[in-house]
Amino acid sequence: MSAKDVFHFVVKNALIKEGWIITDDPLFIGFGGIDLYVDLGAEKIIAAHKDGIKIAVEIKSFVGVSLISEFHRALGQYINYREALKIEEPERKLYLAVPSDIYSNFFSLELIKLVTVSNKLCLIIYNVGEEIIVKWQD
Amino acid sequence: MSAKDVFHFVVKNALIKEGWIITDDPLFIGFGGIDLYVDLGAEKIIAAHKDGIKIAVEIKSFVGVSLISEFHRALGQYINYREALKIEEPERKLYLAVPSDIYSNFFSLELIKLVTVSNKLCLIIYNVGEEIIVKWQD
Repeated sequence: MSAKDVFHFVVKNALIKEGWIITDDPLFIGFGGIDLYVDLGAEKIIAAHKDGIKIAVEIKSFVGVSLISEFHRALGQYINYREALKIEEPERKLYLAVPSDIYSNFFSLELIKLVTVSNKLCLIIYNVGEEIIVKWQD
Repeated sequence: MSAKDVFHFVVKNALIKEGWIITDDPLFIGFGGIDLYVDLGAEKIIAAHKDGIKIAVEIKSFVGVSLISEFHRALGQYINYREALKIEEPERKLYLAVPSDIYSNFFSLELIKLVTVSNKLCLIIYNVGEEIIVKWQD
């Protein structure tokens, strides 16, 4: 199993532990002539629901060699999917799932904090070893 | 010369033809603990000035196999650099340089138009064969 797949599995398990029901893996969003499903290299989005709340989750491992390059891609993907969801499924909220060590070290940097706030990113912080969600940040 | 380097060269030439003076290639922006210069895989940003106006340009070739994946990365990089420039060099305006054929075909798709507008992307549309700038879109 690739590192990316391991993190994907971890986040899914962590969500299930919290009572979420995974409905789509990956979530397919066709929109405006672009099949977002066939993104190459991009993380697959999953969908879940619980108590009538519907979410979509972009699971990011940050296992690449350059954190800022990984962040460029994650941010772009997040913004594009959020825009597509706004039209296709406006009731579904999009989260970016980030490992807790990356959140502590990288997301505490000034630029990343600024970008996270100004672009209204919603985050799920997850602990890889324990397979749990540590924090939801809206 | 790689395809990416060819497009880089084309945009630089097109800017020079319009009277811009290239001052930094690549432009270095150190900010908040992240050395954006060492981005892996990301397009290098250049800087130019003319008549007291200062710009930064992210030159995008879109030669990759998946346009939407290329767009994720270009968008993320643009937003991160714009945020960094806002602090470091607020008078310098950031442009995303896009080949004219990609602009006609891909940037006319509904999702891409929506994202371009809602994220206030400034574009330079360039013709590769003629090495000229076709349009500035603010």
